[in-house]
Amino acid sequence: MSLHVAKTADLGFAEWVIEKQLRIEQMLELTLPSTDIAPQVLHSAMRYSALGGGKRVRALLCYAASELCNGDESMADVAACAVELIHAYSLVHDDMPCMDDDDLRRGKASCHKQYNDATALLVGDALQSLAFEVLSNTQKISNTKLQLSMLNILARASGSIGMAGGQAVDLASVGKSLSQAELESMHLLKTGALIEASILLGVANGSEVQIIAARTFAKNIGLAFQVVDDILDVEADTDTLGKTAGKDATTNKPTYVTILGLDVAKQHAQHLYANAINALKPFGASGHRLKELADFIMQRSF
Amino acid sequence: MSLHVAKTADLGFAEWVIEKQLRIEQMLELTLPSTDIAPQVLHSAMRYSALGGGKRVRALLCYAASELCNGDESMADVAACAVELIHAYSLVHDDMPCMDDDDLRRGKASCHKQYNDATALLVGDALQSLAFEVLSNTQKISNTKLQLSMLNILARASGSIGMAGGQAVDLASVGKSLSQAELESMHLLKTGALIEASILLGVANGSEVQIIAARTFAKNIGLAFQVVDDILDVEADTDTLGKTAGKDATTNKPTYVTILGLDVAKQHAQHLYANAINALKPFGASGHRLKELADFIMQRSF
Repeated sequence: MSLHVAKTADLGFAEWVIEKQLRIEQMLELTLPSTDIAPQVLHSAMRYSALGGGKRVRALLCYAASELCNGDESMADVAACAVELIHAYSLVHDDMPCMDDDDLRRGKASCHKQYNDATALLVGDALQSLAFEVLSNTQKISNTKLQLSMLNILARASGSIGMAGGQAVDLASVGKSLSQAELESMHLLKTGALIEASILLGVANGSEVQIIAARTFAKNIGLAFQVVDDILDVEADTDTLGKTAGKDATTNKPTYVTILGLDVAKQHAQHLYANAINALKPFGASGHRLKELADFIMQRSF
Repeated sequence: MSLHVAKTADLGFAEWVIEKQLRIEQMLELTLPSTDIAPQVLHSAMRYSALGGGKRVRALLCYAASELCNGDESMADVAACAVELIHAYSLVHDDMPCMDDDDLRRGKASCHKQYNDATALLVGDALQSLAFEVLSNTQKISNTKLQLSMLNILARASGSIGMAGGQAVDLASVGKSLSQAELESMHLLKTGALIEASILLGVANGSEVQIIAARTFAKNIGLAFQVVDDILDVEADTDTLGKTAGKDATTNKPTYVTILGLDVAKQHAQHLYANAINALKPFGASGHRLKELADFIMQRSF
């Protein structure tokens, strides 16, 4: 896929990504219960599903947003960890036979294939609980009021007027023709809400101006992320994606590509990207990490 | 079923129960998103699953424990609501075909029968998020540190070393012979953890002595609750239970009745009840509501 975005040749950014990816992996490693602790199979399946995979885009957004406001790094660790646990739970449940019925995730068998449906159900449930357990740990964050508002942001973004709600709208849309506006409002919930939450948790202690700017950036880059996802589903192969390619067409799901066509979908991604970058202006030079992450999201296939 | 416990002839208690049941119903009614809000089907299914059913034992325990420490009633409302949302989510997921596969719940079609499996999955997910959203609402509780510790208690009780973990152990035990100790440790997680959390959320602002006593009460009454459940599964009929009777035998699940026999199971329930009542001694006369609730739990079939 080739989108006209600035190339991130900056080695500093690549190193930053690797450092943060290692950091979040370590955080998750420490947070997920050991397989020595009962119930062992459940804990093994939780670790299987949440560790060692994915680009950790949500954690990266959280860290970058936190740096923007000179946020406390241990607070960002906790927030990034909670967001990645919610994301991991959603993937496990979305892959189940009664949902998207996908056998492959992050380049390996999806949780219900590796274990079984009941275990996958409980893994998702327990990962969600763990996200809120981590974020309510009072050892990590000293500002309790801020911590509560972060919990509330994450809970709202995960629930029926956030990610789970978007999934419900997505399921109901199979085989239907949606307008672009309807598709957009579905994605604002399904993937947008958690991406927005990742950024809002990062800037939780920022000024009102910073939070508003971050929210505009988040909404646009969240939608762009989804448009790119729809394009990749058509253009990339299964090995590159680490999940089944061409899935949208076989399941008769409306996507940006089916509604707009491939070329207009690419233009639309470009437009959303430009809006996101524009929203970073108030931050001046300090917005560079989020700008680089926006580029990273647009170039995900590389 | 006839267990030798003190009869609760006290009209004051019966009125208290009705008042609190109405109160928690109203709290849930206000908390659950309206069916006017999109996604409507998901919100309708969430309300179907969480409203108008059950004895609200967990909410009652939370209110009673809160009264014991002269706790703030709006704090108890929020905690009771969160606990009932977690309980409702667990019932929806437990009834799904890949788990207990039960068509009947609280006297009506279970969520996946009334809607479908995908909706039931999302209903459970969104009810769990909603529980944490409610409990992290800073409008309701003024002590933010206390509120965070309540969130942490609920998250731990719900997760892999609590309720979800107990469900995993339960599934793994089908067709196996368990010792009484193994059965007990499973139930301490599966039903015990959330019952304990209900009481601990109620006494969250109590003294250390009160919290320790409440925990002992909770552990014993939680186990007694489960023994009574196993007895009722054998002795009561489907209409009385509001869920399928005789289910344990047909699914080849180890229960207190299969391990101990009916008579010894009843004696064991009696023994746990006595331990629970004994734990209330430090509270003196003010422990009467929890005592009455213990009786209520033992006499659930009436």
